[in-house]
Amino acid sequence: MEVTRKNFKETLPLISESINKADFLVIDTEFTGLINGRDVSMFDSPQEYYTTLLNGSTDFLLIQYGLCAFFWDEEEKHYKNDAYNFYLFPRGRPGPEKMFLCQSSSLDFLAAQGFDFNKLIKEGISYMTEPIESRLRENLAERQSRSNSEQESITIPVEQRSQIEDICKKVREFLDNSKSDEMEIDRCNAFIRRLLFQELGARFKNEAFVETKVLENKDRVLKVSRLTPENKGENRNLQKKEKEWEEFEEAVGFSKVARMISQSEKLVIGHNMLLDVLHTLNHFFQPLPSDYSSFKEFTHCMFPRILDTKYMCSLPPFKDKVNSSVLQHLLSTLSEPPFSLPKVECAAGRGYTCAQNKAHEAGFDAYVTGLCFLAMQAHLARMRGERGARVAQADAPPLRPFLNKLFLAKTAHQDSPYINLTGPDPTPSRDHVFHLTFPKEWQRSDINQLFSAFGQITVQFLDDTSALVALSRRDLAKTVTWVFANNNRISIMPYVKYKLLNNKHQSE
Amino acid sequence: MEVTRKNFKETLPLISESINKADFLVIDTEFTGLINGRDVSMFDSPQEYYTTLLNGSTDFLLIQYGLCAFFWDEEEKHYKNDAYNFYLFPRGRPGPEKMFLCQSSSLDFLAAQGFDFNKLIKEGISYMTEPIESRLRENLAERQSRSNSEQESITIPVEQRSQIEDICKKVREFLDNSKSDEMEIDRCNAFIRRLLFQELGARFKNEAFVETKVLENKDRVLKVSRLTPENKGENRNLQKKEKEWEEFEEAVGFSKVARMISQSEKLVIGHNMLLDVLHTLNHFFQPLPSDYSSFKEFTHCMFPRILDTKYMCSLPPFKDKVNSSVLQHLLSTLSEPPFSLPKVECAAGRGYTCAQNKAHEAGFDAYVTGLCFLAMQAHLARMRGERGARVAQADAPPLRPFLNKLFLAKTAHQDSPYINLTGPDPTPSRDHVFHLTFPKEWQRSDINQLFSAFGQITVQFLDDTSALVALSRRDLAKTVTWVFANNNRISIMPYVKYKLLNNKHQSE
Ligand SMILES: Nc1nc2c(ncn2[C@@H]2O[C@H](COP(=O)(O)OP(=O)(O)O)[C@@H](O)[C@H]2O)c(=O)[nH]1
Ligand SMILES: Nc1nc2c(ncn2[C@@H]2O[C@H](COP(=O)(O)OP(=O)(O)O)[C@@H](O)[C@H]2O)c(=O)[nH]1
Repeated sequence: MEVTRKNFKETLPLISESINKADFLVIDTEFTGLINGRDVSMFDSPQEYYTTLLNGSTDFLLIQYGLCAFFWDEEEKHYKNDAYNFYLFPRGRPGPEKMFLCQSSSLDFLAAQGFDFNKLIKEGISYMTEPIESRLRENLAERQSRSNSEQESITIPVEQRSQIEDICKKVREFLDNSKSDEMEIDRCNAFIRRLLFQELGARFKNEAFVETKVLENKDRVLKVSRLTPENKGENRNLQKKEKEWEEFEEAVGFSKVARMISQSEKLVIGHNMLLDVLHTLNHFFQPLPSDYSSFKEFTHCMFPRILDTKYMCSLPPFKDKVNSSVLQHLLSTLSEPPFSLPKVECAAGRGYTCAQNKAHEAGFDAYVTGLCFLAMQAHLARMRGERGARVAQADAPPLRPFLNKLFLAKTAHQDSPYINLTGPDPTPSRDHVFHLTFPKEWQRSDINQLFSAFGQITVQFLDDTSALVALSRRDLAKTVTWVFANNNRISIMPYVKYKLLNNKHQSE
Repeated sequence: MEVTRKNFKETLPLISESINKADFLVIDTEFTGLINGRDVSMFDSPQEYYTTLLNGSTDFLLIQYGLCAFFWDEEEKHYKNDAYNFYLFPRGRPGPEKMFLCQSSSLDFLAAQGFDFNKLIKEGISYMTEPIESRLRENLAERQSRSNSEQESITIPVEQRSQIEDICKKVREFLDNSKSDEMEIDRCNAFIRRLLFQELGARFKNEAFVETKVLENKDRVLKVSRLTPENKGENRNLQKKEKEWEEFEEAVGFSKVARMISQSEKLVIGHNMLLDVLHTLNHFFQPLPSDYSSFKEFTHCMFPRILDTKYMCSLPPFKDKVNSSVLQHLLSTLSEPPFSLPKVECAAGRGYTCAQNKAHEAGFDAYVTGLCFLAMQAHLARMRGERGARVAQADAPPLRPFLNKLFLAKTAHQDSPYINLTGPDPTPSRDHVFHLTFPKEWQRSDINQLFSAFGQITVQFLDDTSALVALSRRDLAKTVTWVFANNNRISIMPYVKYKLLNNKHQSE
């Protein structure tokens, strides 16, 4: 179901129930952009990969969150799903004002998929990190504990005096003669409103209650209400304070859901989920640490059981049977023998069915990811001669090889396929990789020509006079340096040496 | 009228005509945010003001442009308007990919005013600066002049061979047996498409034409068309090149309108137009220079006649009669004696009328700004005993005091009301301003208390232990330093000295 600020509060108990009864949770997110500046490179180590995304991806906004809870129906012996598609927009006041980056092509892409940006901005649910929530909570409590009378009084400047007096006269008249209980004062700027709070408060303390009212179009007006014995000033003040807390809780918003997911300690699944995890931690928990091992600990602490289906399908026994691990292609592959999709139903309006096609809606993509996971785990179970369609414990042997590894799409083909959250990362050899400097007029074909004796190569351009080159015939790596030793149009050095020089250069 | 990419090309001649016949042009723009980081401060010099906006405002995107052309109807003896409200979105390909900042409160505000973000992203008109246009133009010409055959051929990796062969077989079958003229090949990633271009091109050169087709939802498929004597490969190649140029011109988009405005050398009017001018230059002409005097020259060169109605109404004879210079308030004020709004009509569907209320739609705000300008200039004319309702030349004496000055809203009350594009800026005295350092626990009232002997003060906090303080009683400024000389809870220094230290500190 779709969740916006309009139904968030009433839906929260449903979400909590879904999380509690689930065997596993699947997430998917949409952002306003992917990468700003230098992208990850084919030969990055897991740590370099993390640092690059930390610097280049965390200024984008998380605008949609899909959460799909899969729970077991013991009577019908199959899974059901509850799915939620959250629009997220941190709108400031009482939450923090947000500055964020957008990438025009990403927005263009989302719009083409039918993403509703008007709904996002008007009805998106707010969120904030835990440190900001704590600070704002203290501020509000402190502000409320100070009484209004402690606000210093300021002298009304000459220019404003006649306007203030005019308005006071009108309020006097309203209190004496009007039949209605409220009047509004519009066309005042913030300073005039500040002065009026002070003057009306002093002159009509026991007769009228003054508050700011924000209109639909964001214009602010002052609302003056008549105080009566039944409608006393103290009551109004209490109501106002309660309302402020309500608005504050609304501003904490989606962060509550993210923390429920974390507290559940359930298996959390995603497809190519590194960026989802980074944004989840960074926007709802706390800013990501620059230290890589702190990041791994922090992630594991918040989400102790994580599984990435893109990583799962890149390993045996799936690797050879899966041509493309793009989510929609994977779903097609897993619908056909030797695989089969499980039966997954949903209560009306609470989840998705396979017949729907809402690709790229975060909630639907989470649902599809869950289906893929179930199809793969059933395949594993069959191979082990098991019959149960229900997912084993995440920590049980069948899933253990896939657990707590975040897939690294760009470097997977260069032997660095994951970040290992609970142990040492892969340390692939880079002996077959070289840094090459060449004349500006060269094209890719000149580089191919240069290496023609070495079989197929992979080239990653750095700029117009340098590139990284990887041999597929690793056995020939040792000969490269001396073969080119006397070629003075180019210069070449092993990747490891290049990295050392580069890091030294950067730290100087 | 509303202009999007759907009607931009056909509307361009109308826009050109409107600009040509106009006596003056009014502009207004909407951005995705106002300021990132440190905002301008009350005591900034015009140069500091510029530098602050350059650093803090230019990463936001310009998303709506209002252009209202006022032209004289000699028969009916009054003005008419043609108004255009452009949605702008630079979507990349073939234009440049854009990274831009958003401020959540600004988007929230625009959404509340009815701004349509879905229309923006789906139908916004592209734009680019002149240097980028030139570079892309050269690239495209160069790329087209290279023939396809020059593309290097790559060896098909083992993993892809069977898929490529399958597809080649299907294309052979389509060419031999199918009745239709086209077939589509979907579910290929970019690399497979690259291989297919090569293989299909080589094997079916004279029988089929292969091209990439982008679907509504941004998926890419390959389209294979049957070549016939009437539908030859060379023709298809020519058509493809023409289409690329068409798409390129579409990507230059709104920049053409901005350059038409510049080339017209007409009087260009805005209300509080500094940011409009900065964004106009930065997005459609070239990146703003960091050097302040270059900025002034560049602006004057692109827009030789500029008038800011917010500056105009802050000077005599309007100053005393205008309580609030917020655009809607100004319009109300100028509708009543001693002012009066002029009659301004429009041809059906081509401009606005006063009866409409589309406040904060850029085109409408431009229209309202034009009305305010006409009311003020009529008032000036009446004071001079003139009767003509038609606006004098921009360079004629009545408008000369207001010409080529960009209003500085934040510093106007501190005697620095404008950037003078054609001469020296105001150099207001800061002798009555002091930098104050105080204990952390102080509130504003403690500062007021401290200065109680000096009359009213203006306080601008810098952080929680320092602030700038300005006296309204400038005659007392000289005594401040020695009065506080022995107060060891605070320290105080003249603003000028503080600035010197600060600048020295920054350049070290
Ligand atoms: N005493 C009192 N002052 C208020 C209240 N709300 C706002 N103010 C003051 O009035 C000023 C204007 O506030 P507001 O109307 O929210 O406008 P804005 O903050 O400038 O957008 C604020 O800076 C506050 O100091 C209130 O409920 N009580
Ligand atoms: N010869 C030829 N190659 C093309 C053409 N269009 C695309 N390609 C090649 O195919 C690759 C894939 O291009 P494209 O389908 O646009 O996918 P994308 O650039 O990865 O999004 C590109 O890198 C080009 O080298 C074409 O019209 N002719």
